[in-house]
Amino acid sequence: MTAKKSPSTLSPLAPKRFAKLPALAGVEVQAMASGSRYRGRDDLVLLRFSKTTTVAGVFTSSKMPSAAVDLSRAHLAGGKARALVVNAGNANAFTGKAGAKAALDTAKGAAKLVDCKPSDVFIASTGVIGEDLDPAPLVAALHQGAGKSDWLDAARAIMTTDTFPKLVTRKAKFDKQEITLNAIAKGSGMIAPDMATLLAFVFTDASVPAGVLQKLLAEANGQSLNCVTVDGDTSTSDTCLMFATGDKKLGGAPLRSLDDKRLAPLRAALADLMQDLAVQVASDGEGVSKLITIDVAGAENDAAARQIGLAIGNSPLVKTAVAGEDANWGRIVMAIGKSGEAAERDRLSIDIGGVQVARKGRAVAGYDERPVAKHMRGAHVHIRVDVGVQVKSKNKAKGQARIWASDLTHGYIDINADYRS
Amino acid sequence: MTAKKSPSTLSPLAPKRFAKLPALAGVEVQAMASGSRYRGRDDLVLLRFSKTTTVAGVFTSSKMPSAAVDLSRAHLAGGKARALVVNAGNANAFTGKAGAKAALDTAKGAAKLVDCKPSDVFIASTGVIGEDLDPAPLVAALHQGAGKSDWLDAARAIMTTDTFPKLVTRKAKFDKQEITLNAIAKGSGMIAPDMATLLAFVFTDASVPAGVLQKLLAEANGQSLNCVTVDGDTSTSDTCLMFATGDKKLGGAPLRSLDDKRLAPLRAALADLMQDLAVQVASDGEGVSKLITIDVAGAENDAAARQIGLAIGNSPLVKTAVAGEDANWGRIVMAIGKSGEAAERDRLSIDIGGVQVARKGRAVAGYDERPVAKHMRGAHVHIRVDVGVQVKSKNKAKGQARIWASDLTHGYIDINADYRS
Repeated sequence: MTAKKSPSTLSPLAPKRFAKLPALAGVEVQAMASGSRYRGRDDLVLLRFSKTTTVAGVFTSSKMPSAAVDLSRAHLAGGKARALVVNAGNANAFTGKAGAKAALDTAKGAAKLVDCKPSDVFIASTGVIGEDLDPAPLVAALHQGAGKSDWLDAARAIMTTDTFPKLVTRKAKFDKQEITLNAIAKGSGMIAPDMATLLAFVFTDASVPAGVLQKLLAEANGQSLNCVTVDGDTSTSDTCLMFATGDKKLGGAPLRSLDDKRLAPLRAALADLMQDLAVQVASDGEGVSKLITIDVAGAENDAAARQIGLAIGNSPLVKTAVAGEDANWGRIVMAIGKSGEAAERDRLSIDIGGVQVARKGRAVAGYDERPVAKHMRGAHVHIRVDVGVQVKSKNKAKGQARIWASDLTHGYIDINADYRS
Repeated sequence: MTAKKSPSTLSPLAPKRFAKLPALAGVEVQAMASGSRYRGRDDLVLLRFSKTTTVAGVFTSSKMPSAAVDLSRAHLAGGKARALVVNAGNANAFTGKAGAKAALDTAKGAAKLVDCKPSDVFIASTGVIGEDLDPAPLVAALHQGAGKSDWLDAARAIMTTDTFPKLVTRKAKFDKQEITLNAIAKGSGMIAPDMATLLAFVFTDASVPAGVLQKLLAEANGQSLNCVTVDGDTSTSDTCLMFATGDKKLGGAPLRSLDDKRLAPLRAALADLMQDLAVQVASDGEGVSKLITIDVAGAENDAAARQIGLAIGNSPLVKTAVAGEDANWGRIVMAIGKSGEAAERDRLSIDIGGVQVARKGRAVAGYDERPVAKHMRGAHVHIRVDVGVQVKSKNKAKGQARIWASDLTHGYIDINADYRS
């Protein structure tokens, strides 16, 4: 029951160069090899945080959460973090009491090293489901430590079927100071948006109380990682955690609300950073050949717009049509129809690559197919639908959303017909 | 914008021989070629019914129903039918007012031929979405008529990407008489259960009032065609109609309830017939290499069990694992977890091919992988899950369902990356 090596052809949508993340006050990064599953690569990351670090998190909505998710969700209650341990290769999911003990033993091992309470340690695990995780080699590797690691090493160490490491950084103003936001993520399959949709970790040197940090993260996540879909499958392990080390402090009254004006630059930078991560994840969807960006307007509300966008982005028929470079908008109509959300057939319009192909519930007679065909041959496909819902007094409903999806190709089948995840 | 010829490799799960359907009193079958889209094959079916014929129907839940669905749904109110017209190649969906007129004109043309009201004519259309349907060649072909057709001709004429025609017949007792049930269906992609999941037509010579017929059909459909999934996509055109010609009458009081004992043999035969159709449809899923039968037990109720079964049957990761002959039950756990229905992780058990591979929330230590691997190499894969929900007083919940699904292969991509449907 060993994981076969997955095809590792680099995604055609991989960035030309990876973001170079600066050091971040209050975070120490170490990547190492536990030897648990993979050979010749790092598979374990330890991040140590300063004593003032607060934490926020969103997790998979799966009813079958992994032991790591159970543990980190419980530890979130304290609002403080001193360490994060991430291992790749074994998800420690569906492993019963032994799995819960393995997660706790890993946290205890890290706590000893960092000199903190186990409840200040967070764990995320990704990889095969249903195999016992032996915490001993993880704890041994943690204690043995590593040489100098950088953010790129950490992003690489948490990869499974990813074909490229995912990193992003932003600067923002925080009162008169400049703060940094760094993030790393992994995920390329079993990704569908239902709370955090993959492993993603965001770090900032700002000082933000845990309660406000949680709201910040939930908001940004809702418009980024929760809007990505590769195959509609939801992992047992999806975790997004945000750590604020508290190095840069605000003057004046403590932060209490998301709407505090002093937070606005951080809030905007976080939204931007997480959307960048979301695009990176969709761009590494298993077997991806094209990134599909879907904009939905005219829905009953934003949540309905998101559901409609996901119905389009998850539809195997839409995804295969995009892979085949076919501007098959009939399948987009089908997907909207099955979403279950309000949509007005006879007011529906669809644009592909900026060209309106359907309007008021039927094809646009004699639209120019050439720019559409050219757009479909590119690596970035843009679909825009207006579902034409009307509210009271015949005003147009204003619900909107943006979804990022990968297409469905032979590569997806190749990867998943023989990789045991 | 022409439909390319789809790959037509016969499904490896196609029946060795097709059912031979007997004549059915009160139904006349004609298959013909309208020349609308396909060349060298029939693409149009006319069924004429005797004057005593009652009708029942279930339709797609899509918010973007085709003009044919709109028309047939409206005509159902009368409870009577004199003709059914089915065309393949153009779904007459998302065609605006012109589409509604095309459907009505087709019904009027058939009504003239059959000498009935247009509202006693039912229409079903399947094929490409978003192209105007010209009713003239259809009406002309109807009036020109055809030579002698049989049920197999009709089943063939309504095919699109199907690789084999779908027919089934059953006999049942109806008081002291013997009645016949015949059915034909089409559908191999864009099939997901949300009301009728494809085009399916059931005929019987029994006399059943429309109200009771509707209940009979809805019940049987809920445990058959509504439990099939190929790709989770729901067509704009899904239609299942049942016609009872009234040739064989019951003595005694009129039928009023589904629970009338005189109905029991018909009810059982209908359930059996429609499950046969459901298996045929899943066995012709686009690109199918294996038929997956999923039994769910221990769910909160039957509806929850069905949702869980569909989450498994729709999961791209489960479907590709089956295609790859990998007994990857971790992905089954994932799919159960994402269904949103109640399930007890730590009481969950999973059988594959009759071998228990997971029990009480973890792998069965040292189970014999050989019979499981052998089972996975076969054409019929059987997955059984018990989600272990407990109800009051610690009794096991009794919700159960059976779902039929196809696997996800390179063939699906081949068919859908370049067929415009």
